[in-house]
Amino acid sequence: MSYNLLMGKKGIIFGALDENSIAWKVAERAYEEKASFILTNTPASLRMGKIYDLSKKTKSIVIPADATSISDIEILFDKALIFFGGKIDFILHSIAMSINIRKKLEYPCINYDFLKKGWDISAVSFHKIMKIAWDKKAINKWGSIVALTYIASKRNFPSYVDMSDYKSYLESIARNFGYFWGIKEKVRVNTVSLSPIYTKAAASISGFKDFLYLSNKLSPLGNASSQDCADYIITLFSDLTRKVTMQNLYNDGGFSKIGINECLISLKD
Amino acid sequence: MSYNLLMGKKGIIFGALDENSIAWKVAERAYEEKASFILTNTPASLRMGKIYDLSKKTKSIVIPADATSISDIEILFDKALIFFGGKIDFILHSIAMSINIRKKLEYPCINYDFLKKGWDISAVSFHKIMKIAWDKKAINKWGSIVALTYIASKRNFPSYVDMSDYKSYLESIARNFGYFWGIKEKVRVNTVSLSPIYTKAAASISGFKDFLYLSNKLSPLGNASSQDCADYIITLFSDLTRKVTMQNLYNDGGFSKIGINECLISLKD
Amino acid sequence: MSYNLLMGKKGIIFGALDENSIAWKVAERAYEEKASFILTNTPASLRMGKIYDLSKKTKSIVIPADATSISDIEILFDKALIFFGGKIDFILHSIAMSINIRKKLEYPCINYDFLKKGWDISAVSFHKIMKIAWDKKAINKWGSIVALTYIASKRNFPSYVDMSDYKSYLESIARNFGYFWGIKEKVRVNTVSLSPIYTKAAASISGFKDFLYLSNKLSPLGNASSQDCADYIITLFSDLTRKVTMQNLYNDGGFSKIGINECLISLKD
Amino acid sequence: MSYNLLMGKKGIIFGALDENSIAWKVAERAYEEKASFILTNTPASLRMGKIYDLSKKTKSIVIPADATSISDIEILFDKALIFFGGKIDFILHSIAMSINIRKKLEYPCINYDFLKKGWDISAVSFHKIMKIAWDKKAINKWGSIVALTYIASKRNFPSYVDMSDYKSYLESIARNFGYFWGIKEKVRVNTVSLSPIYTKAAASISGFKDFLYLSNKLSPLGNASSQDCADYIITLFSDLTRKVTMQNLYNDGGFSKIGINECLISLKD
Repeated sequence: MSYNLLMGKKGIIFGALDENSIAWKVAERAYEEKASFILTNTPASLRMGKIYDLSKKTKSIVIPADATSISDIEILFDKALIFFGGKIDFILHSIAMSINIRKKLEYPCINYDFLKKGWDISAVSFHKIMKIAWDKKAINKWGSIVALTYIASKRNFPSYVDMSDYKSYLESIARNFGYFWGIKEKVRVNTVSLSPIYTKAAASISGFKDFLYLSNKLSPLGNASSQDCADYIITLFSDLTRKVTMQNLYNDGGFSKIGINECLISLKD
Repeated sequence: MSYNLLMGKKGIIFGALDENSIAWKVAERAYEEKASFILTNTPASLRMGKIYDLSKKTKSIVIPADATSISDIEILFDKALIFFGGKIDFILHSIAMSINIRKKLEYPCINYDFLKKGWDISAVSFHKIMKIAWDKKAINKWGSIVALTYIASKRNFPSYVDMSDYKSYLESIARNFGYFWGIKEKVRVNTVSLSPIYTKAAASISGFKDFLYLSNKLSPLGNASSQDCADYIITLFSDLTRKVTMQNLYNDGGFSKIGINECLISLKD
Repeated sequence: MSYNLLMGKKGIIFGALDENSIAWKVAERAYEEKASFILTNTPASLRMGKIYDLSKKTKSIVIPADATSISDIEILFDKALIFFGGKIDFILHSIAMSINIRKKLEYPCINYDFLKKGWDISAVSFHKIMKIAWDKKAINKWGSIVALTYIASKRNFPSYVDMSDYKSYLESIARNFGYFWGIKEKVRVNTVSLSPIYTKAAASISGFKDFLYLSNKLSPLGNASSQDCADYIITLFSDLTRKVTMQNLYNDGGFSKIGINECLISLKD
Repeated sequence: MSYNLLMGKKGIIFGALDENSIAWKVAERAYEEKASFILTNTPASLRMGKIYDLSKKTKSIVIPADATSISDIEILFDKALIFFGGKIDFILHSIAMSINIRKKLEYPCINYDFLKKGWDISAVSFHKIMKIAWDKKAINKWGSIVALTYIASKRNFPSYVDMSDYKSYLESIARNFGYFWGIKEKVRVNTVSLSPIYTKAAASISGFKDFLYLSNKLSPLGNASSQDCADYIITLFSDLTRKVTMQNLYNDGGFSKIGINECLISLKD
């Protein structure tokens, strides 16, 4: 199904790895909606994953870039501006990694070197990408920038460990950079707060399957799938949401607004 | 411009009066996106306004109904189910009225009879509409219900007087009824929090033009117009936002996320 | 234990019924902290409850008043001003009632006559009390007004039915009246959002004991008791919190900030 | 004036520099309320500031520690446990520094080495302090940990530059560590969000005086002073707020809840 919502729009999608990636689904849906885009991920991810299958399928090109490296991002944007012969319209940031989670360290016992790395990859990379795009004036008026987040930024989910704090930081970046993009370039910046999704990154979270099950059971509409997520992000890249900016938007089946209900009480019995 | 986003969808739009009404723009955009719908408003509003011009333009029918009257709403839904030969997919609630505002009463001095009336019209009507739709099982799976609100529900805007409290109540209804719609019928319920818009209702607010000017100046992307608002609501009625529910969504040019900035400081000089 | 935190302060406490009432504990603690106050409740509640035991214990007087009746509240404030020989310093609003809950009606099936009554008692009464106090200039500079609320105002708790919406409205009143009290009289207005507490009113909520159990289990510090609640409210009446206003303050053992954790996951097994 | 609210309580206060520091006022008030405590700051700050005047005045000792250094914090807690002959009851974190602000760099142009340093000092230090306290089991049951923050964590204040993001991160740490402290040790963790205050750190923010003026004018009760702030923090260290945890609490004269009002409109004229 296609509505041609992104006809003529060009973008960069960060973070597609394999068909479970949210960025992968966004790329597929953006392609269906007639967008052109560049796929990017770290060289290591490009080797591990199947991104070239995606690029073939979506007639897009792949440019490797480590999103924590200023020079990599600069090269990426330079190439993008040349490739498209002009500015782009949208960016998806779907990048998150916590070594502390992988190493099964609990929140009070995290390692601070891992923390610095995880923060740089999961949060600061979003600032770096926008800074380079800003310096190069790479985004068209009424463009749209989206980063993915999770409600652990607002409430405690112990299994998200330090990722919770990165997501708070990421959402803060969206608000703060969003102000400047808004006043100077009429570009909007938002974060989308998703249901948990079983991606490669999520697989490293201990007890993730229980987590997924509970989240689904407690969400009045069930978990939003990566497909649901992609559909929603398409609307944020389209021209129909031009005045929505600096927001954190829940696409979570209602999970964020539930309290104690029969479903929760029934768990107890 | 049309994406056929609402192809095959049927709905009821409450609250169109004249071409400045937000509901009016939503109707125009919904028509462009290929929806069929019924327009409704109170008999008095139908006489005062130009709704029949809109119904002609959008090939829709008009059914008068006072949204505070259970029997009126029942008749409306009965007729809608017959007219469409089945259930509907979307509802827009764009109804708000405060006699206290019209009478220029300040918040500490409101009249409680006016309050009861304003609350019933502006907030309880939303519950009543959903209750009748619920009882009659009138909404298709994955349907979408939207009510319009303003940030005065969260912060103090003295010129909104008692309307601020109605909007808090309205947003609460969306969350609470949204839970039941979600678990039983897979229907979503959201409120959209808009920039101020110069409608007939707004005209009764004292100092509204200054208000509009300041809001526009302080919003990084400027105020969202009723056109912007209509575009956004189309995405919420479409199949692309199926898992978004029980949310209060700002379409406000970023106003809700600003603090003290140069623009505010410059006012001072 | 006493810190003399309210030495010389005078107030009115609405809503004490029996020793399970939160207002009862607040009165006891306020007395220990050296406040003088008037106890008030409806004539019917005065008959049913044990308020005269409390008044004896706390050397306070009882003045009957229906908090939905403007004339009752006027008489109450007139008497208070005479009794104290001057203005008062604090007010506690601990009033809530839902006939829909008592009648075991679910949220989508509420009765609108009951709704009007419940809204008037549980929410509008707070406005009425402040309006009369405002008109009579009955509150000293740096006075403090507190109303009690519950997190059902922000998220869905189906068993709170229409009380959820009243609490949203109540919190909105606090913000909006708080602005006027602040600028004109240097008086602060806040709501305190509590853990569930097994009061007479709570007893009418279906499944309240399960609810209480779960809330306690999920709150990192356990539920706040009515004693904890009273202690907290004392700080809000004291001179140590003079610049805290228009806030909704959680005294809930951390419940409002939890997501999915081991305790929740363990329920599932 | 003293209520003996902290009689018998022991703590550590981070961040007092001179008599404009918020931590300085907290120390003075804690002393009046009969607490014993250790003052700490970096060796450089100890040289620059007047902390020994404060220690004399409050009969406290000074232990130098760089709050980004694990070994410094370990030594500090070891000494504290010996000095007090047992666990402590409260911690104040009042530490914030942004080189990007000092260097007058705007948000889109920040330097990432400065960022790493600022983040470590202003936010991660709070995690480090709690981690060492956690490992050493240094805090008594029902202890209280407070960090200071600003509303720039939630909305955009361009002059706060990267400090805004640090404060978001800091508040997130409070929530996440607060969960563990709660379930294991019955200790609470909160952040207090203050009015702007003219401290040494604030002096480096460009246009801070205009900022202070506007904030004061727009806050219904005016800005909270450092004295107001200290009073409030005393209540959070006392036994009267035992069930308040994982919260971000505004002590800001109502600033956080204002929208567009006459005062704002009058600026325009």
